[in-house]
Amino acid sequence: FKMIKAALSVLLVLVAMSSAKYIPKSGKRIPQTLSRGWGDQLIWAQTYEEALYWARSRNKPLMVLFHLEDCPHSLELRKVFSEDNGIQRMLDEEFIVLNLMYETTDKHLSPDGQYVPRIIFVDPTMTVRADIVGRYSNRMYAYEPLDIKLFKSNMEKAKKLLKSEL
Amino acid sequence: FKMIKAALSVLLVLVAMSSAKYIPKSGKRIPQTLSRGWGDQLIWAQTYEEALYWARSRNKPLMVLFHLEDCPHSLELRKVFSEDNGIQRMLDEEFIVLNLMYETTDKHLSPDGQYVPRIIFVDPTMTVRADIVGRYSNRMYAYEPLDIKLFKSNMEKAKKLLKSEL
Repeated sequence: FKMIKAALSVLLVLVAMSSAKYIPKSGKRIPQTLSRGWGDQLIWAQTYEEALYWARSRNKPLMVLFHLEDCPHSLELRKVFSEDNGIQRMLDEEFIVLNLMYETTDKHLSPDGQYVPRIIFVDPTMTVRADIVGRYSNRMYAYEPLDIKLFKSNMEKAKKLLKSEL
Repeated sequence: FKMIKAALSVLLVLVAMSSAKYIPKSGKRIPQTLSRGWGDQLIWAQTYEEALYWARSRNKPLMVLFHLEDCPHSLELRKVFSEDNGIQRMLDEEFIVLNLMYETTDKHLSPDGQYVPRIIFVDPTMTVRADIVGRYSNRMYAYEPLDIKLFKSNMEKAKKLLKSEL
Protein backbone atom coordinates (compact mmCIF):
# COMPACT_ATOMS: atom_id res chain seq x y z
CA PHE A 1 0.00 0.00 0.00
CA LYS A 2 2.84 2.34 0.95
CA MET A 3 4.57 1.36 -2.30
CA ILE A 4 1.53 2.31 -4.37
CA LYS A 5 1.30 5.65 -2.56
CA ALA A 6 4.99 6.32 -3.22
CA ALA A 7 4.62 5.34 -6.88
CA LEU A 8 1.63 7.64 -7.19
CA SER A 9 3.55 10.60 -5.72
CA VAL A 10 6.40 10.03 -8.16
CA LEU A 11 3.91 9.88 -11.01
CA LEU A 12 2.26 13.11 -9.85
CA VAL A 13 5.60 14.89 -9.70
CA LEU A 14 6.45 13.66 -13.20
CA VAL A 15 3.10 14.85 -14.57
CA ALA A 16 3.54 18.22 -12.85
CA MET A 17 7.06 18.54 -14.28
CA SER A 18 6.06 17.66 -17.82
CA SER A 19 3.20 20.17 -17.81
CA ALA A 20 5.31 22.95 -16.28
CA LYS A 21 5.18 25.97 -18.55
CA TYR A 22 8.29 27.50 -20.06
CA ILE A 23 9.80 30.24 -17.90
CA PRO A 24 12.72 32.33 -19.22
CA LYS A 25 16.00 32.18 -17.29
CA SER A 26 15.63 35.88 -16.52
CA GLY A 27 12.31 35.16 -14.78
CA LYS A 28 8.65 35.24 -15.64
CA ARG A 29 7.50 38.07 -17.89
CA ILE A 30 4.20 39.98 -18.02
CA PRO A 31 2.62 39.29 -21.42
CA GLN A 32 2.96 42.30 -23.76
CA THR A 33 -0.24 44.12 -24.65
CA LEU A 34 -1.14 45.80 -27.91
CA SER A 35 -2.36 48.93 -26.10
CA ARG A 36 1.05 49.76 -24.60
CA GLY A 37 -0.69 52.04 -22.13
CA TRP A 38 -2.63 54.15 -24.67
CA GLY A 39 -6.01 52.62 -23.77
CA ASP A 40 -6.30 49.12 -22.33
CA GLN A 41 -9.99 48.88 -23.18
CA LEU A 42 -9.59 49.71 -26.87
CA ILE A 43 -9.35 47.05 -29.56
CA TRP A 44 -6.01 47.84 -31.20
CA ALA A 45 -5.07 46.64 -34.67
CA GLN A 46 -1.68 44.92 -34.73
CA THR A 47 -0.42 46.09 -38.13
CA TYR A 48 -1.16 48.83 -40.67
CA GLU A 49 -2.49 46.23 -43.14
CA GLU A 50 -4.91 44.93 -40.51
CA ALA A 51 -5.97 48.46 -39.54
CA LEU A 52 -6.65 49.44 -43.17
CA TYR A 53 -8.70 46.29 -43.64
CA TRP A 54 -10.83 47.12 -40.59
CA ALA A 55 -11.21 50.78 -41.60
CA ARG A 56 -12.46 49.84 -45.05
CA SER A 57 -14.73 47.01 -44.02
CA ARG A 58 -16.31 48.91 -41.11
CA ASN A 59 -16.23 52.32 -42.85
CA LYS A 60 -14.55 53.98 -39.89
CA PRO A 61 -11.65 56.44 -39.83
CA LEU A 62 -8.29 55.07 -38.66
CA MET A 63 -6.00 56.73 -36.15
CA VAL A 64 -2.32 55.77 -36.43
CA LEU A 65 -0.25 56.78 -33.44
CA PHE A 66 3.55 56.61 -33.56
CA HIS A 67 5.30 56.64 -30.19
CA LEU A 68 8.27 55.32 -28.25
CA GLU A 69 8.32 53.96 -24.73
CA ASP A 70 11.53 55.84 -23.88
CA CYS A 71 10.38 59.20 -25.28
CA PRO A 72 9.25 61.62 -22.53
CA HIS A 73 6.97 63.56 -24.92
CA SER A 74 5.23 60.32 -25.88
CA LEU A 75 4.80 59.37 -22.22
CA GLU A 76 3.35 62.79 -21.24
CA LEU A 77 0.86 62.62 -24.10
CA ARG A 78 0.03 58.99 -23.25
CA LYS A 79 -0.98 59.97 -19.73
CA VAL A 80 -3.59 62.56 -20.73
CA PHE A 81 -4.63 60.52 -23.78
CA SER A 82 -5.29 57.30 -21.87
CA GLU A 83 -7.02 59.07 -18.97
CA ASP A 84 -9.37 61.13 -21.14
CA ASN A 85 -12.61 59.16 -21.19
CA GLY A 86 -14.05 61.31 -23.98
CA ILE A 87 -11.15 60.42 -26.28
CA GLN A 88 -11.21 56.77 -25.23
CA ARG A 89 -14.95 56.40 -25.83
CA MET A 90 -14.86 58.14 -29.21
CA LEU A 91 -11.89 56.06 -30.33
CA ASP A 92 -13.56 52.87 -29.13
CA GLU A 93 -16.91 53.50 -30.74
CA GLU A 94 -16.08 55.44 -33.89
CA PHE A 95 -12.47 54.77 -34.89
CA ILE A 96 -10.07 52.00 -35.83
CA VAL A 97 -6.92 52.41 -33.73
CA LEU A 98 -3.29 51.42 -34.25
CA ASN A 99 -0.22 52.34 -32.24
CA LEU A 100 3.24 51.68 -33.65
CA MET A 101 6.76 51.98 -32.32
CA TYR A 102 8.38 51.18 -35.68
CA GLU A 103 7.76 52.99 -38.95
CA THR A 104 5.96 51.24 -41.78
CA THR A 105 7.27 51.15 -45.36
CA ASP A 106 4.39 53.43 -46.42
CA LYS A 107 5.78 56.95 -46.83
CA HIS A 108 2.30 58.48 -46.78
CA LEU A 109 2.33 57.96 -43.02
CA SER A 110 5.26 60.38 -42.62
CA PRO A 111 4.17 63.46 -44.64
CA ASP A 112 6.70 65.70 -42.87
CA GLY A 113 9.17 63.14 -41.55
CA GLN A 114 9.41 60.43 -38.95
CA TYR A 115 9.13 61.57 -35.35
CA VAL A 116 7.22 60.71 -32.19
CA PRO A 117 4.67 61.31 -30.87
CA ARG A 118 2.88 61.65 -34.23
CA ILE A 119 -0.78 61.03 -34.95
CA ILE A 120 -2.07 60.54 -38.49
CA PHE A 121 -5.68 59.98 -39.46
CA VAL A 122 -6.58 57.81 -42.45
CA ASP A 123 -9.96 57.85 -44.17
CA PRO A 124 -11.65 54.49 -44.91
CA THR A 125 -11.08 55.28 -48.61
CA MET A 126 -7.40 54.71 -47.61
CA THR A 127 -6.55 58.40 -48.07
CA VAL A 128 -4.10 59.72 -45.48
CA ARG A 129 -5.68 62.87 -44.01
CA ALA A 130 -2.55 65.04 -44.30
CA ASP A 131 -4.89 68.03 -43.84
CA ILE A 132 -5.62 67.17 -40.19
CA VAL A 133 -2.73 68.77 -38.32
CA GLY A 134 -1.70 69.95 -34.88
CA ARG A 135 -0.24 73.22 -33.66
CA TYR A 136 3.42 72.95 -34.69
CA SER A 137 4.52 73.94 -38.18
CA ASN A 138 7.79 72.01 -37.98
CA ARG A 139 6.10 68.82 -36.76
CA MET A 140 2.62 69.06 -38.10
CA TYR A 141 1.29 65.79 -36.67
CA ALA A 142 2.70 66.16 -33.15
CA TYR A 143 0.54 66.88 -30.11
CA GLU A 144 1.44 67.92 -26.58
CA PRO A 145 -0.71 67.32 -23.48
CA LEU A 146 -2.05 70.89 -23.71
CA ASP A 147 -3.28 70.24 -27.27
CA ILE A 148 -5.86 67.67 -26.21
CA LYS A 149 -8.78 69.97 -27.10
CA LEU A 150 -7.35 70.53 -30.58
CA PHE A 151 -6.86 66.79 -30.88
CA LYS A 152 -10.54 66.21 -30.09
CA SER A 153 -11.64 68.68 -32.75
CA ASN A 154 -9.29 66.87 -35.17
CA MET A 155 -11.04 63.60 -34.31
CA GLU A 156 -14.31 65.28 -35.27
CA LYS A 157 -12.76 66.31 -38.60
CA ALA A 158 -11.58 62.75 -39.22
CA LYS A 159 -15.10 61.46 -38.53
CA LYS A 160 -16.40 63.49 -41.50
CA LEU A 161 -15.49 60.88 -44.09
CA LEU A 162 -14.31 61.76 -47.57
CA LYS A 163 -16.68 60.74 -50.32
CA SER A 164 -15.59 57.47 -51.79
CA GLU A 165 -14.83 57.86 -55.49
CA LEU A 166 -15.88 54.30 -56.24
CA PHE B 1 -18.96 69.10 11.86
CA LYS B 2 -21.58 66.98 10.16
CA MET B 3 -21.58 69.47 7.26
CA ILE B 4 -17.83 69.13 6.80
CA LYS B 5 -18.13 65.36 6.80
CA ALA B 6 -20.91 65.51 4.20
CA ALA B 7 -18.91 67.92 2.05
CA LEU B 8 -15.90 65.63 2.29
CA SER B 9 -17.95 62.61 1.15
CA VAL B 10 -19.27 64.54 -1.84
CA LEU B 11 -15.71 65.58 -2.70
CA LEU B 12 -14.50 62.00 -2.44
CA VAL B 13 -17.26 60.76 -4.74
CA LEU B 14 -16.41 63.49 -7.26
CA VAL B 15 -12.72 62.60 -7.19
CA ALA B 16 -13.55 58.91 -7.61
CA MET B 17 -15.87 59.69 -10.52
CA SER B 18 -13.41 61.91 -12.34
CA SER B 19 -10.65 59.30 -12.09
CA ALA B 20 -12.91 56.41 -13.15
CA LYS B 21 -11.37 54.66 -16.13
CA TYR B 22 -13.19 54.27 -19.41
CA ILE B 23 -15.22 51.07 -19.62
CA PRO B 24 -16.91 50.07 -22.90
CA LYS B 25 -20.72 49.76 -22.90
CA SER B 26 -20.35 46.07 -23.69
CA GLY B 27 -18.35 45.59 -20.47
CA LYS B 28 -14.72 45.46 -19.43
CA ARG B 29 -12.32 43.74 -21.84
CA ILE B 30 -9.19 41.73 -21.16
CA PRO B 31 -6.26 43.59 -22.77
CA GLN B 32 -5.11 41.91 -26.01
CA THR B 33 -1.69 40.27 -25.94
CA LEU B 34 0.83 40.06 -28.74
CA SER B 35 1.39 36.34 -28.09
CA ARG B 36 -2.21 35.35 -28.90
CA GLY B 37 -1.61 32.06 -27.12
CA TRP B 38 1.53 31.02 -29.06
CA GLY B 39 3.89 31.62 -26.12
CA ASP B 40 3.05 34.13 -23.41
CA GLN B 41 6.66 34.29 -22.22
CA LEU B 42 8.15 35.14 -25.61
CA ILE B 43 8.91 38.71 -26.67
CA TRP B 44 6.86 39.06 -29.86
CA ALA B 45 7.53 41.71 -32.47
CA GLN B 46 4.41 43.67 -33.41
CA THR B 47 5.05 44.18 -37.13
CA TYR B 48 7.21 42.71 -39.89
CA GLU B 49 9.25 45.94 -40.06
CA GLU B 50 9.97 45.73 -36.35
CA ALA B 51 10.83 42.03 -36.58
CA LEU B 52 13.26 42.59 -39.48
CA TYR B 53 14.94 45.40 -37.55
CA TRP B 54 15.43 43.13 -34.53
CA ALA B 55 16.65 40.21 -36.68
CA ARG B 56 19.27 42.38 -38.36
CA SER B 57 20.43 44.24 -35.30
CA ARG B 58 20.66 41.11 -33.10
CA ASN B 59 21.79 38.80 -35.91
CA LYS B 60 19.11 36.24 -35.12
CA PRO B 61 16.83 34.33 -37.49
CA LEU B 62 13.20 35.44 -37.60
CA MET B 63 10.20 33.14 -37.43
CA VAL B 64 7.01 34.55 -38.99
CA LEU B 65 3.89 32.61 -38.07
CA PHE B 66 0.60 33.25 -39.90
CA HIS B 67 -2.51 32.00 -38.13
CA LEU B 68 -6.17 32.70 -37.48
CA GLU B 69 -8.04 32.44 -34.20
CA ASP B 70 -11.03 30.76 -35.85
CA CYS B 71 -8.99 28.19 -37.82
CA PRO B 72 -9.03 24.72 -36.17
CA HIS B 73 -5.69 23.72 -37.76
CA SER B 74 -4.08 26.85 -36.32
CA LEU B 75 -5.54 26.11 -32.88
CA GLU B 76 -4.34 22.49 -32.88
CA LEU B 77 -0.85 23.55 -33.83
CA ARG B 78 -0.92 26.36 -31.27
CA LYS B 79 -1.60 23.88 -28.48
CA VAL B 80 1.45 21.68 -29.11
CA PHE B 81 3.57 24.68 -30.11
CA SER B 82 2.86 26.69 -26.97
CA GLU B 83 3.22 23.69 -24.66
CA ASP B 84 6.53 22.47 -26.09
CA ASN B 85 9.16 23.91 -23.77
CA GLY B 86 11.97 22.98 -26.16
CA ILE B 87 10.45 25.08 -28.93
CA GLN B 88 9.58 27.92 -26.56
CA ARG B 89 13.10 28.06 -25.09
CA MET B 90 14.80 27.94 -28.47
CA LEU B 91 12.50 30.63 -29.87
CA ASP B 92 13.04 32.81 -26.82
CA GLU B 93 16.81 32.53 -26.74
CA GLU B 94 17.79 32.22 -30.38
CA PHE B 95 15.03 33.66 -32.57
CA ILE B 96 13.07 36.81 -33.26
CA VAL B 97 9.37 35.92 -33.31
CA LEU B 98 6.34 37.44 -35.01
CA ASN B 99 2.80 36.09 -35.30
CA LEU B 100 0.38 37.68 -37.73
CA MET B 101 -3.31 37.24 -38.51
CA TYR B 102 -3.22 39.58 -41.52
CA GLU B 103 -0.93 39.26 -44.54
CA THR B 104 1.79 41.83 -45.14
CA THR B 105 2.33 43.55 -48.48
CA ASP B 106 5.60 41.62 -48.90
CA LYS B 107 4.97 38.79 -51.36
CA HIS B 108 8.17 37.00 -50.33
CA LEU B 109 6.29 35.88 -47.21
CA SER B 110 3.83 33.87 -49.30
CA PRO B 111 6.07 31.84 -51.65
CA ASP B 112 3.28 29.35 -52.42
CA GLY B 113 0.22 31.37 -51.50
CA GLN B 114 -1.54 32.77 -48.45
CA TYR B 115 -2.88 30.18 -46.03
CA VAL B 116 -2.80 29.40 -42.31
CA PRO B 117 -1.12 28.01 -40.34
CA ARG B 118 2.06 28.92 -42.22
CA ILE B 119 5.54 29.36 -40.80
CA ILE B 120 8.29 31.16 -42.72
CA PHE B 121 11.85 31.65 -41.52
CA VAL B 122 13.79 34.78 -42.49
CA ASP B 123 17.56 35.07 -42.24
CA PRO B 124 19.03 38.22 -40.60
CA THR B 125 20.37 39.12 -44.06
CA MET B 126 16.61 39.63 -44.79
CA THR B 127 16.50 36.61 -47.10
CA VAL B 128 13.29 34.61 -46.81
CA ARG B 129 14.32 30.98 -46.26
CA ALA B 130 11.96 29.50 -48.87
CA ASP B 131 14.14 26.36 -48.67
CA ILE B 132 12.93 25.50 -45.14
CA VAL B 133 9.70 23.61 -45.75
CA GLY B 134 7.30 21.21 -44.07
CA ARG B 135 5.82 17.92 -45.20
CA TYR B 136 3.08 19.02 -47.60
CA SER B 137 3.88 19.70 -51.25
CA ASN B 138 0.71 21.76 -51.83
CA ARG B 139 1.24 23.92 -48.73
CA MET B 140 4.96 23.86 -48.23
CA TYR B 141 5.07 26.05 -45.11
CA ALA B 142 2.21 24.39 -43.21
CA TYR B 143 2.75 22.22 -40.14
CA GLU B 144 0.42 19.89 -38.27
CA PRO B 145 0.76 18.88 -34.61
CA LEU B 146 2.44 15.61 -35.66
CA ASP B 147 5.14 17.56 -37.56
CA ILE B 148 6.58 19.12 -34.43
CA LYS B 149 9.82 17.12 -34.71
CA LEU B 150 10.28 18.23 -38.32
CA PHE B 151 9.57 21.79 -37.19
CA LYS B 152 12.34 21.56 -34.61
CA SER B 153 14.83 20.35 -37.18
CA ASN B 154 13.74 23.24 -39.40
CA MET B 155 14.48 25.62 -36.54
CA GLU B 156 17.99 24.14 -36.44
CA LYS B 157 18.33 24.80 -40.18
CA ALA B 158 17.20 28.40 -39.71
CA LYS B 159 19.79 28.86 -36.97
CA LYS B 160 22.56 28.15 -39.50
CA LEU B 161 22.69 31.67 -40.83
CA LEU B 162 23.42 32.51 -44.44
CA LYS B 163 26.68 34.31 -44.98
CA SER B 164 26.10 38.00 -45.24
CA GLU B 165 27.22 39.33 -48.59
CA LEU B 166 28.07 42.72 -47.16
